[in-house]
Amino acid sequence: MKKLLAEEADAIAQSLNYRHNGFIVAITQDALNAEVLMTAFMNREAFIKTLTTGEAHYWSLSRGRLWRKGEESGHVQEVQEVFVDCDGDAVLLKVKQTVAACHMGYRSCFFRKVVDGGVKESAEKLFQP
Amino acid sequence: MKKLLAEEADAIAQSLNYRHNGFIVAITQDALNAEVLMTAFMNREAFIKTLTTGEAHYWSLSRGRLWRKGEESGHVQEVQEVFVDCDGDAVLLKVKQTVAACHMGYRSCFFRKVVDGGVKESAEKLFQP
Repeated sequence: MKKLLAEEADAIAQSLNYRHNGFIVAITQDALNAEVLMTAFMNREAFIKTLTTGEAHYWSLSRGRLWRKGEESGHVQEVQEVFVDCDGDAVLLKVKQTVAACHMGYRSCFFRKVVDGGVKESAEKLFQP
Repeated sequence: MKKLLAEEADAIAQSLNYRHNGFIVAITQDALNAEVLMTAFMNREAFIKTLTTGEAHYWSLSRGRLWRKGEESGHVQEVQEVFVDCDGDAVLLKVKQTVAACHMGYRSCFFRKVVDGGVKESAEKLFQP
């Protein structure tokens, strides 16, 4: 995706509805195979940074601050496409994911599946966290 | 997906973390083509109903009550697979979607795309809402 100018990103960010405690929901999907990799929240600044840098930024609830995905792990997400939902309170990113999205070592955070009445790991671990 | 027994669903629901104002984030994906259709919140009851009935249920923020997707429109979601994320505060449903997920007439709620520094409709309208 072509990086947006600050004023372009501002205008889109302005049109969204940060109604979830000041956040929008972000869903991140692998641009190659459409696997859902993760979900996180974004505040206005995280959304603008995502559009202007081309790298996914979120709001880290645990750290209470802006979070550039991969800033520590190197597992960055290069944004290919961004979609906005009907209510303007959620966005969908299609990304080129380096290594893995999940800090627990899996490609996707959704590595557990409901099977036989319980929850079981359903994905391969790519690295030891 | 085989419908879960109430006690099986209860046990899984018990293991989740309803840390977003009492909700988990649900992401709903088309089981056929992996398109992300929508996102919504679930409380514990909505998650249990989804597992025990095999039909997607959410918490409607606008109505302030449990919401069986398609209860008015008939655009129900037959759940094929359910995944749980690493933190236990989000779930991914893969569904067989009847007609369309979005109340505005599009297959997916993410029918607007960031293009040329702005936001443009990027999907076909399937019905007039």
